[in-house]
Amino acid sequence: MSSSLTPFFKPRGVVVIGASTSPEKLGYGVARNLIQSRYKGAVHFVSQKSGTLFDRPLYTNLNDVPDPVDLAILIVPTQVTPQTIEDCAKRGIKAAIIVSAGFREVGAEGAALEQQCVDVARKHGGAFAAAIIDCARGEGFGFSQIVSLGNQADVNETDVLPEVAKDEHTRVIVLYMESVSDGAKFVHAASEVTKHKPVIALKVGRFEAGQKAAASHTGALAGSEAAFDAAFAKAGILRADTAEQMFDWARALEDCPLPRGKRMAILTNAGGPGVIAADSLETNGLLLSQLTESTLRALSSYLPPSSSVHNPVDMLASASPESYATCLKILLQDENVDGVLVILPPPPMFKTENVAEKVIEVIGNFDKPVVVALMGSTLVEEANKVFQRAHVPTYPFPERAASALGALAKRAEYLNGLQHLPTLELNKSKSEVRRLRTPEELIASYGITTTPIKLARDENEAVTIANELGFPVVMKIASPDILHKSDIGGVLLNIKSAEEALSGYATLLERAKKAMPLARIEGVHVQRQIPEGQEVIVGAVRDPLFGPLIMFGSGGIEVEGLKDVAFALAPLNQTEAQEMIRKTWAGRKLKGFRSIPPVDEESVIDVLVKLSLLAYEHPEVDEIEINPLRVLQKGAVAVDVRVRLRA
Amino acid sequence: MSSSLTPFFKPRGVVVIGASTSPEKLGYGVARNLIQSRYKGAVHFVSQKSGTLFDRPLYTNLNDVPDPVDLAILIVPTQVTPQTIEDCAKRGIKAAIIVSAGFREVGAEGAALEQQCVDVARKHGGAFAAAIIDCARGEGFGFSQIVSLGNQADVNETDVLPEVAKDEHTRVIVLYMESVSDGAKFVHAASEVTKHKPVIALKVGRFEAGQKAAASHTGALAGSEAAFDAAFAKAGILRADTAEQMFDWARALEDCPLPRGKRMAILTNAGGPGVIAADSLETNGLLLSQLTESTLRALSSYLPPSSSVHNPVDMLASASPESYATCLKILLQDENVDGVLVILPPPPMFKTENVAEKVIEVIGNFDKPVVVALMGSTLVEEANKVFQRAHVPTYPFPERAASALGALAKRAEYLNGLQHLPTLELNKSKSEVRRLRTPEELIASYGITTTPIKLARDENEAVTIANELGFPVVMKIASPDILHKSDIGGVLLNIKSAEEALSGYATLLERAKKAMPLARIEGVHVQRQIPEGQEVIVGAVRDPLFGPLIMFGSGGIEVEGLKDVAFALAPLNQTEAQEMIRKTWAGRKLKGFRSIPPVDEESVIDVLVKLSLLAYEHPEVDEIEINPLRVLQKGAVAVDVRVRLRA
Repeated sequence: MSSSLTPFFKPRGVVVIGASTSPEKLGYGVARNLIQSRYKGAVHFVSQKSGTLFDRPLYTNLNDVPDPVDLAILIVPTQVTPQTIEDCAKRGIKAAIIVSAGFREVGAEGAALEQQCVDVARKHGGAFAAAIIDCARGEGFGFSQIVSLGNQADVNETDVLPEVAKDEHTRVIVLYMESVSDGAKFVHAASEVTKHKPVIALKVGRFEAGQKAAASHTGALAGSEAAFDAAFAKAGILRADTAEQMFDWARALEDCPLPRGKRMAILTNAGGPGVIAADSLETNGLLLSQLTESTLRALSSYLPPSSSVHNPVDMLASASPESYATCLKILLQDENVDGVLVILPPPPMFKTENVAEKVIEVIGNFDKPVVVALMGSTLVEEANKVFQRAHVPTYPFPERAASALGALAKRAEYLNGLQHLPTLELNKSKSEVRRLRTPEELIASYGITTTPIKLARDENEAVTIANELGFPVVMKIASPDILHKSDIGGVLLNIKSAEEALSGYATLLERAKKAMPLARIEGVHVQRQIPEGQEVIVGAVRDPLFGPLIMFGSGGIEVEGLKDVAFALAPLNQTEAQEMIRKTWAGRKLKGFRSIPPVDEESVIDVLVKLSLLAYEHPEVDEIEINPLRVLQKGAVAVDVRVRLRA
Repeated sequence: MSSSLTPFFKPRGVVVIGASTSPEKLGYGVARNLIQSRYKGAVHFVSQKSGTLFDRPLYTNLNDVPDPVDLAILIVPTQVTPQTIEDCAKRGIKAAIIVSAGFREVGAEGAALEQQCVDVARKHGGAFAAAIIDCARGEGFGFSQIVSLGNQADVNETDVLPEVAKDEHTRVIVLYMESVSDGAKFVHAASEVTKHKPVIALKVGRFEAGQKAAASHTGALAGSEAAFDAAFAKAGILRADTAEQMFDWARALEDCPLPRGKRMAILTNAGGPGVIAADSLETNGLLLSQLTESTLRALSSYLPPSSSVHNPVDMLASASPESYATCLKILLQDENVDGVLVILPPPPMFKTENVAEKVIEVIGNFDKPVVVALMGSTLVEEANKVFQRAHVPTYPFPERAASALGALAKRAEYLNGLQHLPTLELNKSKSEVRRLRTPEELIASYGITTTPIKLARDENEAVTIANELGFPVVMKIASPDILHKSDIGGVLLNIKSAEEALSGYATLLERAKKAMPLARIEGVHVQRQIPEGQEVIVGAVRDPLFGPLIMFGSGGIEVEGLKDVAFALAPLNQTEAQEMIRKTWAGRKLKGFRSIPPVDEESVIDVLVKLSLLAYEHPEVDEIEINPLRVLQKGAVAVDVRVRLRA
């Protein structure tokens, strides 16, 4: 454990500075909670008045406090806080938690904990932490550590996360976040943690960020929320929508084995909740398992004829504890079933807790997740306790049980994806952006195909350029005086050979001279003719927290309106790029749709990976956007590129 | 009350046919529940063996059962069910509920209830109903009636809904639906009910409908879910996403006054849940109220300096019961505040129930909704009871409290909208579709502008047609032998006057003759030239349950991919049409976006209303689609129309 954080997580002794004997004072509450917390180290109190508190002396001078003491909890007026910290330092105390009211923002708070949670948080988030501990107690699970970081003046989430993860008693980590101190570091640290332990985040403050000025569609669409989503995805963190969901998921992730796939079975004694559960499985990205023939036969021969043996398996209200156990066993034995959602409203003829006992015996024999929708209140109280003791997660409604199964499947998918992740080759030889004259040159230096327009000053140069660009080319008269080139026949399409380029040059000059004898002619612009294809947008914008954020989606001028875009953090590997593509209609369409012919999806993946590398390796690029990128039958060409460099 | 349903809702006597003395039999459970249900009418039992059950005789013959008896509950084998029903009819029993297992589908079940709920449902949905009753009990509210309709062989939701609504003890109606028997009737009946009482529906079976063959984009996109959404919107029914949400909303709608607007205040003693609540308000379509200056002054002078007086108002963890009451009062007095979300985790220094008591005193003095996020478990148990007794809805997490406030605001908005709903004029003189030759004629008969192509056989006819269509027109040579008309100069754009039409006719004939002397010339096609504009799709498809469903959105060929569409049930009024437009990007764009100039939104509303009338008045039209409808600076023109009539 890193030495500077040790006193926070494993203090040998704690002193409460500002302890009080008045029960309505904060200094009393903190002292009481620390005593009640089962913290096993030394606890000391410092107060303005001498005396005793909880059978311990009240010291009036910090220097009188005996060893060991390496963590101070400060409940002192704001004005004297700096002096008190200095006093602590002089006394050799390495860590301090400031609990004082009197700072305008959310004040610094914290907790010194080992094995059992200590509720020292007494302000702002503090009451929240107390409610969370109480709530968890009600649901039969506990926290090994609760770390409330306050204003993070000194210690932030990136420092703490790996330390928390090291704790053998911590099996699941839940994060409540309003922001992040160092996004890139956080993603890196979290990625390491999630390889071994599940992390769930509740990120709040979604609607607080105002609109910012942006030079591109990518910049306009990439808000802080998109960045957090991308960061959580990159780090393998499961993002919960609500606090309740965070805890629902945490219980499943703590207690259940991970499923091998997404095919789930539903076992119920009532039709309605079975249908609800089936809907919810799909909402949560899961599939209703197709039971094997032998499972259907086994269920048919066991259940009464009016039951439904097809998934959702409805045993009818007459189902006994034995029916639940037998059918659950049959389902868990099915190779097509990756997990089971058991629905258990109070059975009319039996005690719910008896069903619980029978079901638990079965669950223990399989390495597949089983979650229970235990519906009701007083009639299922006893059953709930039975399940809690056996570490089988229960939820009051099928939707929440399905959501928990969904979290398990997402976790499994993430760990599975880690095993065959292609490695990303970072470009060793960075090009210096500022030395490159145009956006086209910049993206071309990363191997992205562009369509440069080049000026030919004579017919031989036209041929050279056309050869260089590759046929077919487009040729346009180059003159500052001729605005509507097509009108005078000043544009030649589909020039296929050197000969055609040679004669084309002459043709254009002749037509221009004839139509506008006084126009200044600079020569002829030559450009590779881009075949028909599909057009998409590809962009990158530097998020202030997480660095370059890559966007892909439907291009054109209506990007912000259609919002058919996906985001991911740079650098991207092929798999990540492909996932972005699949998330959007523009991406799915690449494979063709009705009269729209299929185009080269691989080339888009390639451009995404390359652009992400470019953005990752060039911190001076604030925004870069290719709109459109024309995707052809073979290859993709950047038709228009814009870059904004950091000021 | 309609006479045929009276026995179900107000039976004078009930007979259980198939009652049993064996506790593990269904016939025993139903009898027991009926006895325990506090149902005040007569209860009789019929069984194969004579004897007694619950101090009542067991009759072996239905004819021996004494009066009064007007409802029978059948727990008999499937095979003898028809005979038993006949026996009932002979005995003068007007209503029967079939509980027998042995029907393959969800069996018919039911309940005869008055004032207190009777749980007779013993099969499928029955266990679900039991769980719901138990769950409600745990949350401190009850059901005045629970009606489980089983397979609805005789009585369906449309018959029952108005009856349930008439009950003075029923303040909120919740519906669990898997389908609907007669969609149009249901929408009509529900619309009447929701004017007086809130109705919340949980519609399940979302993912069951397979793909169906469709002749249009509208048909392909309009699934059963879109139809149910549209039907619920039309009927003023609030649609809940989950069972938990349905009950969360029901409690708020039962206990709270409706808000006048959407501006909500948050009162908290902890920062984190305050931020969560603020996010959740916005997620649920509500606004974080801007507190008035005088409110801010009042809060500032009352609260300690480190509190946050801006919404969310954070009193800090030291907040006392008096702080909660005083600040809540200040907030409810604010004219900018339409409702308050109180966040109450266990305060460190006070008992949560004391806060509850103080807060309740304040709530009673205002006609604004207040919901409480009461966070925790054992520490808030007592407070929860206090709130329940006072009919103040509590929720364990801020997100759920915010969702309940959102439901209140939606209900208020709906009732408000009812007051100034424009009346819809149904077309009295229906045109006979089959007599109209073309889709263009059909929509034109409803006043929707089309672009008919007409053939002029000579130059005078060309002038007549052009005058009729209105200038400018496009003229094209009409010949079965000339495929590429533009190539021979066979198309004239922007013909602005009769003179130009006259000479145009001659020009086209001359050019055709010169280019292709042998081509057969039929004359010249004249078509109104449609100016540039925005293109949208407008369609209608006959939903098998609810009738014509109108679609609006982004047109073209990618309709199904972009899915930028909205649905509503016909007939539409202007307000409903406008709402559809606002829901889509295609609609919002009508007002202009960046370089896209604004177009005539009113004309789109007009087309939507007219098309909805057309579909409503012509049951023989299965699908009709205008794609694209070109919306101009003034007016809108149907460029392409397709119709599919019922086979």
